[in-house]
Amino acid sequence: MHYLSGPVAVEGAEPGDCLVVDILDVQPYENIPWGYTGIFELEGGPGGLFATEFQTHAAKAIWDFEGIYASSLHIPGVRFAGIPHPGIIGTAPLHELLQTWNQRETGLIKEVGEKPGPPVASPPEHKGAYVGQDLPDEVRERIHREGARTISGREHGGNCDIKNLSKGSRCYLPVFVKGANLSVGDLHFSQGDGEMTFCGAIEMAGIVTFKTSIIKGGVEKFALKQPIFVPSPIDPVYSQQLVFEGISVDIRMHLHHFGGSVINLSIDGTGKQYNMDATVAYKQAALNAIAYLQKLGYTRQQAYLLLSAAPIESHVAALVDSPNACVTLGIPTAIFEQDILPKPEGLEKKDHGQCAIRSDGVV
Amino acid sequence: MHYLSGPVAVEGAEPGDCLVVDILDVQPYENIPWGYTGIFELEGGPGGLFATEFQTHAAKAIWDFEGIYASSLHIPGVRFAGIPHPGIIGTAPLHELLQTWNQRETGLIKEVGEKPGPPVASPPEHKGAYVGQDLPDEVRERIHREGARTISGREHGGNCDIKNLSKGSRCYLPVFVKGANLSVGDLHFSQGDGEMTFCGAIEMAGIVTFKTSIIKGGVEKFALKQPIFVPSPIDPVYSQQLVFEGISVDIRMHLHHFGGSVINLSIDGTGKQYNMDATVAYKQAALNAIAYLQKLGYTRQQAYLLLSAAPIESHVAALVDSPNACVTLGIPTAIFEQDILPKPEGLEKKDHGQCAIRSDGVV
Amino acid sequence: MHYLSGPVAVEGAEPGDCLVVDILDVQPYENIPWGYTGIFELEGGPGGLFATEFQTHAAKAIWDFEGIYASSLHIPGVRFAGIPHPGIIGTAPLHELLQTWNQRETGLIKEVGEKPGPPVASPPEHKGAYVGQDLPDEVRERIHREGARTISGREHGGNCDIKNLSKGSRCYLPVFVKGANLSVGDLHFSQGDGEMTFCGAIEMAGIVTFKTSIIKGGVEKFALKQPIFVPSPIDPVYSQQLVFEGISVDIRMHLHHFGGSVINLSIDGTGKQYNMDATVAYKQAALNAIAYLQKLGYTRQQAYLLLSAAPIESHVAALVDSPNACVTLGIPTAIFEQDILPKPEGLEKKDHGQCAIRSDGVV
Amino acid sequence: MHYLSGPVAVEGAEPGDCLVVDILDVQPYENIPWGYTGIFELEGGPGGLFATEFQTHAAKAIWDFEGIYASSLHIPGVRFAGIPHPGIIGTAPLHELLQTWNQRETGLIKEVGEKPGPPVASPPEHKGAYVGQDLPDEVRERIHREGARTISGREHGGNCDIKNLSKGSRCYLPVFVKGANLSVGDLHFSQGDGEMTFCGAIEMAGIVTFKTSIIKGGVEKFALKQPIFVPSPIDPVYSQQLVFEGISVDIRMHLHHFGGSVINLSIDGTGKQYNMDATVAYKQAALNAIAYLQKLGYTRQQAYLLLSAAPIESHVAALVDSPNACVTLGIPTAIFEQDILPKPEGLEKKDHGQCAIRSDGVV
Repeated sequence: MHYLSGPVAVEGAEPGDCLVVDILDVQPYENIPWGYTGIFELEGGPGGLFATEFQTHAAKAIWDFEGIYASSLHIPGVRFAGIPHPGIIGTAPLHELLQTWNQRETGLIKEVGEKPGPPVASPPEHKGAYVGQDLPDEVRERIHREGARTISGREHGGNCDIKNLSKGSRCYLPVFVKGANLSVGDLHFSQGDGEMTFCGAIEMAGIVTFKTSIIKGGVEKFALKQPIFVPSPIDPVYSQQLVFEGISVDIRMHLHHFGGSVINLSIDGTGKQYNMDATVAYKQAALNAIAYLQKLGYTRQQAYLLLSAAPIESHVAALVDSPNACVTLGIPTAIFEQDILPKPEGLEKKDHGQCAIRSDGVV
Repeated sequence: MHYLSGPVAVEGAEPGDCLVVDILDVQPYENIPWGYTGIFELEGGPGGLFATEFQTHAAKAIWDFEGIYASSLHIPGVRFAGIPHPGIIGTAPLHELLQTWNQRETGLIKEVGEKPGPPVASPPEHKGAYVGQDLPDEVRERIHREGARTISGREHGGNCDIKNLSKGSRCYLPVFVKGANLSVGDLHFSQGDGEMTFCGAIEMAGIVTFKTSIIKGGVEKFALKQPIFVPSPIDPVYSQQLVFEGISVDIRMHLHHFGGSVINLSIDGTGKQYNMDATVAYKQAALNAIAYLQKLGYTRQQAYLLLSAAPIESHVAALVDSPNACVTLGIPTAIFEQDILPKPEGLEKKDHGQCAIRSDGVV
Repeated sequence: MHYLSGPVAVEGAEPGDCLVVDILDVQPYENIPWGYTGIFELEGGPGGLFATEFQTHAAKAIWDFEGIYASSLHIPGVRFAGIPHPGIIGTAPLHELLQTWNQRETGLIKEVGEKPGPPVASPPEHKGAYVGQDLPDEVRERIHREGARTISGREHGGNCDIKNLSKGSRCYLPVFVKGANLSVGDLHFSQGDGEMTFCGAIEMAGIVTFKTSIIKGGVEKFALKQPIFVPSPIDPVYSQQLVFEGISVDIRMHLHHFGGSVINLSIDGTGKQYNMDATVAYKQAALNAIAYLQKLGYTRQQAYLLLSAAPIESHVAALVDSPNACVTLGIPTAIFEQDILPKPEGLEKKDHGQCAIRSDGVV
Repeated sequence: MHYLSGPVAVEGAEPGDCLVVDILDVQPYENIPWGYTGIFELEGGPGGLFATEFQTHAAKAIWDFEGIYASSLHIPGVRFAGIPHPGIIGTAPLHELLQTWNQRETGLIKEVGEKPGPPVASPPEHKGAYVGQDLPDEVRERIHREGARTISGREHGGNCDIKNLSKGSRCYLPVFVKGANLSVGDLHFSQGDGEMTFCGAIEMAGIVTFKTSIIKGGVEKFALKQPIFVPSPIDPVYSQQLVFEGISVDIRMHLHHFGGSVINLSIDGTGKQYNMDATVAYKQAALNAIAYLQKLGYTRQQAYLLLSAAPIESHVAALVDSPNACVTLGIPTAIFEQDILPKPEGLEKKDHGQCAIRSDGVV
């Protein structure tokens, strides 16, 4: 799923310290100026925001890098500045903390129980565990048995997939063990807030350069339960955005309802009302954005991949107005060749072809 | 809770059209250059993000407006540019849509069942219903019986509390009934993403000025299930932020765990693991920010009110790495008099007094 | 030319202090939601950047205000957020300082001597002097005789026409006399860097609201020879610009020179080489921008007025590479309805009509 | 003075075309993570904005690069994001155009005549001419005799030292000769608007990567007399600035004038009034900024070097209010470790040591 470098021991780092990591540079290998964004199949796949909605078929887009910009033959008509960053950056946990993770996550697996679709969590087990070579068998065995999977972010940071941990940003991480044991990886050329599909960022092969320093006792000084950071002053500025709203209802709506006027649009959600659920609200905002992009001629898969990979901004608008959480999703208008703003005459629907996909779902 | 003006009928608007609303101006009454942000008591209160955590006592902050800036004697040391906006803007629903709302929300109330704390939703009932005067009794009665409460945002917009619907923004709303019947209200001088406390924005008395136009058939043209908008080019720019992370675990951590080094910080969460829950992740990021602000000398209530009212930015970072959603919460550093960035020597803890509160919770 | 309010005495202000002025608000009268930008005739006019080049005829554009935006029937196809500001803000000079101004400016008039075209400076004289009413004749006489004209900015601030002294900005002015005697006026709804034409900003009738405070001894504390300021965080953000370069040569170029290929463009400058002259470089950048805008179908007068009134950014790029100063002029692309970026197929030349002008020059 | 790579012939480029150059990357050599900014001695030096004012001694600052940031032991207390860019980018001129350059520049030299100080222009001559090797003697001779010096920018672009031609920007250059013959060089890690000292940018050894394409007939299509460009979306954002004003008067002011209050500050300018001279106005704004920085404890040389190298913004505010041009110079406050904004208690004057300089002026 992702490569990881480390752990790197930082001399002098002790439990309770704050590890300061300056991200100096993140870039693709000079000879690999491309990356990809993918949608997995629901069947046996790791999921994705719309796993059950429309991941019956796998799909992907290959992105070509040209300086700071990414563009794709699979999603024509867009070109945007990347925000290269490591999807993963984290220190090593204490053994007690590791146990806490395993307990709570296996607990969740039990709680949810057997159900179709992607797993809710990945327990420590032999299957699918990849660890460094040259380890004594019993050590490797123990890692398989106790080591937390790196799919999800946790107190130490880890796979948080925060798009703004880009070059020029400074991160402050809690140190749990002697040496901190920093690991970094899962490089992305770009990503949208939320990283909708499981492989939603523009995954790239490249190099991350960073510098570390230590603030003694930083955990207590800064109440550092989890990493904090200061973003880079050179993250791309796209001042104009088209913003979509979503609430915590899986909306079901049929527009022939519209006063009898025949309108060819129907929303086939379940109609279920959720209780202040920002995840559902985000999904709804995304569905609204996808429907809009389809009006511009993009396929649902292209829209799904584009929103995952482009520098979209998703804000938690309000978590106060029971029962509906409200989340917004903003698309920078300047990344499109065509003007995407609403027009009295409607939107220009262009033929953008489609992303890499095979009708039998095998790519 | 909030005042609402309307409904205003827009000539020519028909079901299926898109109502374009240009927010021309939002400002407080000249003779009321102040507003407030409040925390309700848990007991009998409407809730808030941390209702059960620390709303045993009511609290509030009065904000003084000076041109574009807000500051408060109850939360000293900060001054920020407001983003005045209406918390509520929405068209009127079809009767069928109204019924859908009432059904799904009463359904949720049943589903959740009896439980302590704030209500999960507000059903249509006589109690607490405020409607325009001069109405025939049977009409008022019917509104009490069928009219959806305006606390939550829905397909038509409504109380979405989106901080960027400020002057200079343009909104596109779906029209469900003849004339659109636009309502606007709940003016805020400023608000942070998420509006943590129930009365978390800076509530103000003022005037909103807008202009409307119509795009025929806009619902179909733009797949307009819910409002979309283009933010204003004059929303405040605070380029540097200190960002906090949160994941979907109600973290429990005791720092004496930290390799024996005695550290006076413990996180008393339940330790519960949630399944990709962005609401929990937002709450965790908020708790981390509050703990940090306490290191600067702010009380928990002051921090809670400040994060609710100031122009903080909360992004949905990732909803992909099961089981942990990741949400970030960014505080603009320039709104503080003091330098709040982490320093090797630690943070300067100042005495900021406290917000308006009484130990018996009665304000 | 412009209205001025003041002088306002600030209690406690003494020579050597710094007068802090917070611009709280600048807005047009509610019942006068419009302004204008003008080009004067060369004959008897006050000048303008291109007085001798193409001000044979007077012209003007009326701008309609709609919330934060300005648009004009005289310059169709553009709409931009204003940066309302006072063109003039200044303290009163010492009498010695006043004498210095009069001496150096009358000196310049002598130095330049008789020449056609607009005056290089305006000496204190009876002609064209407007002063407050209800003054004893000898006082008025003396003001006519000694009072500096308010056309130009000076050490005290004055008519500097800095577009970013908008609401939310804070100015620090040197105090020369007891009470500071602050004057403010010449309100603009918007202006481009440089204010090309003499009446180049969008002149409006309105109200400016400000607050003052004093920093004792600020002149010495801050080496305050002239005003300094901190711009507002809500000045409009237009991230994408099309930028034109200019150097200190009044370029003369004939494009049939272009390798024999017949090209219908010739630059009829004098060909004169100036010595590191940023004013000439600015004019050249402006001429390049005007020529470009003409390719979009705007008349030379429309382009001249637009660049004067819209939020264009002009930077002093380099004053080091003898003999050519380099100045850039950037036009925000988002203020145009059409896409103005260079395209392989060329620019779309639209009929934008023309601004208010009469062939006999009398408007 | 600067290295130059090229000329590079672009296949298909013909006179009258527009050469589109995408700046893909600009970075220092990995093994040379440093650069320098210098002040030349007046004696025999090439000048600089304040050559005659305070360049009696040479001075310099070495800048260390750390990812996107630059800092210097010679100017402590500041750290800023660079905007790496080529100071020079230009196509080759026609022979007629070359002659025009030589005529007008030698004409200026004659016009100015013998005077002390740096040369006003550099005529084509054997002295100081550096050309590619392996050329027949007569060719090299002719280049010495006719080739324009690359010190100054001209119609073709050249050494314009525009700080925003950074990675991600797109330039449109006029093509004068077959193949365009593009030259690029003089790499800077960072530069302030104006590049005050002759060697004012952070000169670095590095690599620039670009891509070219051609727009046929672009010169006519875009009225392309000189290059135009679209800046990069990732240029650093420093939203808060402290801005200084300057007007076209070499101000002379003695503060004992200040109502008798004894103030230890006097401005020893000549008092000369210039006629709408933006170069003088820029110099005055710079002098005001330097005086302010001295109050923070920086030496005049440190301030001079800092303003030359850091991302300062200089705007042409107004060229309309005869006789005083107004130019502003803005310093981003976030690049300083200390808070540099004016405070009631005055500025904290720290000991920042001094830059590399020897009292005898020999470095």
